[in-house]
Parts: sequence; structure tokens; C-alpha cells
Amino acid sequence: MTSDIILLGHGSGGTLSHRLLDDLIVPVLSGLGPREQNDAAVLPAVAGRLAFTTDSYVVDPLFFPGGDIGCLAIYGTVNDLAMAGARPLHVSVGLILEEGLPVAELRRVLESLRAAADRCGVAIVTGDTKVVPRGKADKLFVNTAGIGVLDHPVAISGRGARPGDRVLINGPFGDHGMAVLAAREGLELTAPIVSDCAPLHAVVRDLLAELGTAVHVLRDPTRGGVATTVKEIARQSDVAIVLDEAALPVSPAVAGACAILGLDPLFVANEGKLLACVAPEAAEAALAIMRRHAPAGGGGPAAIGEVVAESGGRVRLRTAIGGMRAIEMLAGEQLPRIC
Amino acid sequence: MTSDIILLGHGSGGTLSHRLLDDLIVPVLSGLGPREQNDAAVLPAVAGRLAFTTDSYVVDPLFFPGGDIGCLAIYGTVNDLAMAGARPLHVSVGLILEEGLPVAELRRVLESLRAAADRCGVAIVTGDTKVVPRGKADKLFVNTAGIGVLDHPVAISGRGARPGDRVLINGPFGDHGMAVLAAREGLELTAPIVSDCAPLHAVVRDLLAELGTAVHVLRDPTRGGVATTVKEIARQSDVAIVLDEAALPVSPAVAGACAILGLDPLFVANEGKLLACVAPEAAEAALAIMRRHAPAGGGGPAAIGEVVAESGGRVRLRTAIGGMRAIEMLAGEQLPRIC
Repeated sequence: MTSDIILLGHGSGGTLSHRLLDDLIVPVLSGLGPREQNDAAVLPAVAGRLAFTTDSYVVDPLFFPGGDIGCLAIYGTVNDLAMAGARPLHVSVGLILEEGLPVAELRRVLESLRAAADRCGVAIVTGDTKVVPRGKADKLFVNTAGIGVLDHPVAISGRGARPGDRVLINGPFGDHGMAVLAAREGLELTAPIVSDCAPLHAVVRDLLAELGTAVHVLRDPTRGGVATTVKEIARQSDVAIVLDEAALPVSPAVAGACAILGLDPLFVANEGKLLACVAPEAAEAALAIMRRHAPAGGGGPAAIGEVVAESGGRVRLRTAIGGMRAIEMLAGEQLPRIC
Repeated sequence: MTSDIILLGHGSGGTLSHRLLDDLIVPVLSGLGPREQNDAAVLPAVAGRLAFTTDSYVVDPLFFPGGDIGCLAIYGTVNDLAMAGARPLHVSVGLILEEGLPVAELRRVLESLRAAADRCGVAIVTGDTKVVPRGKADKLFVNTAGIGVLDHPVAISGRGARPGDRVLINGPFGDHGMAVLAAREGLELTAPIVSDCAPLHAVVRDLLAELGTAVHVLRDPTRGGVATTVKEIARQSDVAIVLDEAALPVSPAVAGACAILGLDPLFVANEGKLLACVAPEAAEAALAIMRRHAPAGGGGPAAIGEVVAESGGRVRLRTAIGGMRAIEMLAGEQLPRIC
């Protein structure tokens, strides 16, 4: 790399492109040599149903307490595969770079992508890099797509919630969105908030291995937060879900920051949380598995609600003082560009 | 859809997002209903090795003679799978939208994505949509990733070229890059140039079915053009390749426009061309298969060169007047943002 910023020519397909790929991107992401690069990766046959997902990442800023766009992109795709009950196998990485991006920032993101993939046991097997002129993108966008395998017969889907199911979450929520917001706006918080950005494939593997068909729905409450995701589950399964306000785990730091800014933590994004609807007799065991995988000092998993036999996809919150409040999705944007 | 332009709220995960997905994006791309949407698509088991690829598309302008960013994104990914010898199966679509994009333009791109997928017999099974503020992207970027299956034992790779192999191309080159350039710059050409944007999976299927292991390398000469791709093959296979200038098929319109603009068509991008290195005894049969798949009036396939036993990855052009000229990759950008 002879330039310390990204030039338009790095996207040309010529020698500048090849040098960027051969000297930086490919060695960091995959360890493949230049002679092994082809238009597509050829991978061993897989026994079982496949899961396939994609997400683009446009988070602003690129780096925030607890994570960055690189680990976010890997964990996001790993988690989407896990939410289908799949074991993640292979990931692709598509980069859109803005001319002028410091190569040092790109390197930091690439190293984070690789470290996150290694942590999840997935291989980055194929990729693509484009460069657009200054002012035509915002520093760096990442797309990841992922392939996983379902090597068990359990069917996990947003349609699976059944009356009586307990709704569980694997820890306190709202941290990711507030960490990104604080970093972007330069907010001085007395208690700093760190993103919960983390992979969920291991907790899902254990939930399915130990509880099998007692697990009905898995969903990670990212954009739109817990409230929006619960609403989606209720609609897809055509049931009602009642959440218990007193049981909702929110850290004092997140609760305080949300109160000051007029935000509702129920609608703030998460990147290492999962919601599960499980048969009532499996709820305690599921919470125990979640506890095994919870980060130390991060606060515990909780049963936060129950599925009710009622058509129409309604979500209600039983408030701490005993009332009932309807939960609807927000119309628009509470916090833009948090992932 | 109540707004006729894209708003930031369309990327929020809330009701605006859901309406954009449920009313426009998902029905056009996949035909899935809202109750069937999950974090990842679950697909039937596949018998055979898998191929996996991704590309992001940032072409400017979005629409050009012969194509648009939508069909480009599908054909590009289908072609990358085909170049590994795979039969394309499933595609993901990740959209990054700039606030203010007219919904009518988005719809046109989505319809093109779907029509192209239908033409190739692939299903768009999963996707993602992000919105960034005005000035943080350029209208619309698309990422596609694709999964294919290798249901035959032939190994196709850039390392496969062998001395004596004939180098074939399935038609005249340079049309895509020049069509995009003319559309972007508003050039008034006496003979309009139309992009060659087209899928290559069918010609590859027939080449492999009829010629099998006589096919050694397949590569589509996109960014960087024929010259760069031939150079990549020579390097990966550690051979030399001699191209025959008199045999290079370039349409008079492309040749004329390149001459006026000082561009070399050997370095101009293509989106419906493939280079093949095949055993000499299979060359005529391969050209016949390519002819069967060539668009009417588009000009014919041609044998353009030969692989030579010489280490170091050199490419030479035997000029029309009998000299030899070394071909090197360009350093930087001849034509930015052509895909």
C-alpha cells in the first residue's frame, strides 16, 4: 500500500485494486493467496437445510464503545443465521469505500471483521470492494451475507409463537443504540454505555440441543428494539403478547440516558440480544442456558412476557402500577444509522 | 406507500420500514407475504459442492442503454457463480438508499432485479434495506450475494490454464463500459452503444455438459476489461498468454468511441462476456456452443489467443502488423463506477 488514503483507482480493477486486495484486504480477511482468488468461492457440500441471510451496515460512527462496523457486520449476520436455528458456516464481505478514507481505518475495520469471524468459527470466503468518489458515500459501508446449516429438524420461525409460551430475553436491552448515539453526538454520560454487540450462535446451539422443539421463536431485537420485534412476532404468529414492565431488564445507565433524551428503551436497538418464545415448562431451563452464556456483570436474562390466544397481533404492556398499555411500532426514526 | 420519495424513517425498522417492505420491496422481489419474513431464509438441502459470491453495485447512472443497476446486480452475481462452474440457485439483495430517492426509481430497479432473477431461474430469498441521509450515498447502491451448486466434478479455476489452451471470448467486448460512460457524460454518439449486460449461466452449463474437463478456466472480464482478466489468468496459472490483435472482436461503434476518447477497449468493462481457456481440440466445439447462445446481431465469438508454457504471468499482444506488445494492468481508473 503506497497511499495512506483510499483513491478512486483502488476500485478500478487495475494494479492499485490488486495491491489493495493482495496486500491488505484478502490477507486480513481470509488468508487466501493471490493465486487462489476466483469469481466465486467453491465450498464443500453441506448436509442439511441451508440458511441464507444478508445485511448492509451503515452505522455512524464507524467505531463506538464496545464495537465497530466490522464486528457488527459479522455478528449481525451470524445472529440472523442463528435466529433461523442454523449453525453459521461461511460469510461474504462487500465493502463500499469513500475516496479519501484513511487506509488505517480500513485496516482497523478489516481486523475487526476477521477477529469477529474467528470468534464465531465462520470463514470469510468471498468478497468485493468498490470505491465511490468523495461525498458519494459516508466513509465505509459493509455488506455481509452468510450461509448456515440446519443440522437438526427443529423449525424456528416468527410464526411459531403459541398461547402460553413464555417470552424470554437473554439480558438487559437498549445498550447498543444508546452507545452509538452517545458516540455520535459526543454525549458526556456519567455512566458510560457500551454496546452489547456479540454473537448469539452459541446460546442458540445450546437452546436447540437441550430444549429442541420446546423452542418456538428466536428473534434478535435490532433496529426498532424489543417492542418492534415483539410486535412482529405477535403479528406473524397471529397471537397477542403481554409484556410485564416490572420484569423488563434495562441498566440504570441506559434508563437514565433514555429518560434525559426522551427515548423509550423498548424501541432502542440491540446487537447481542435475543428474544425467545418457549413452551412454559422449558422456560426455567432456557433461562439457565442463557445465564451460562451471559457476559459477566452484564445483567441477567429475564422472562418478560407471555403469549396469549388472541388474534390480531396486539402487544400490551402490563405497567408497574398495574395498568395495561398498548405497544405499537413507531412510525419513523427514533435513532438513525445505529447499524 | 404514502410518500413518493424515500425518507430516513423508511430505514428505521418501524411502521414506515414495514410498509416499504410489505407494499413494495418484498412483493416485487420475492412474492413472500409479511407473515413469512424471518431473519434468514431457510432453503432445501443441496446435493453437491456450493459456490458462494458477492458483489456491490454503485454504477452511475442507475439506468443506461441496455440495462440498469438492478439487472446488473443479478447478472453479475449469476455470472460469478457460473464462472466457478456452478448452477445459480439463490440470491440475496441488500439495498442502501439515499434519503430523497424517488420511490418510482426504486420500483423500477426492483422490477429489473426481479425480471433478471426470473430470467436466470434464481430466487431472491433474503434481503435488507438501509436508508442514509442525503449526501451520504449516491441515490442507490445494491449488494447481491449468491449461492450456486456444482452438480458435476469438473474443477474450474483461474489456476487451470495449460500451455496449448485456446483463449476464447463469446463476443465483441467493451460495450458495457462505453454505454455507461456515454449515458453518464451525455455523449452524442452517431452509433449508440448498448451494454452487453446478460447472464452467462446457460452458455456455461452447455460448455461443461458437452466439453467437461476440456474447459479449464472461465472468467468474466468485468472491471479492468479483457486485458486485466487475461493478465489475472496468466498470473494465477503461472503461464504466458499471447493475444492476437487481428482476432479481437470489437464493434465499430465501440472502436470509434474509444479512439475519440483515447481509451483502449481491451481495458473497458463487460457484463455479458466470458473468457474461456479450453483444450485446443475442444476449441471449435466451444465456439459453436458460444455461437448458439450469442445474441442475434451482436457479433460472434472468437478465438483470441493461446496459452504458452512460460513462467511469470506475462501477456503479449501479437499486433496486426506482426509485432509483439506487452500488456500490463492499468495502474488506476480508466472509467470509474461502471458497475
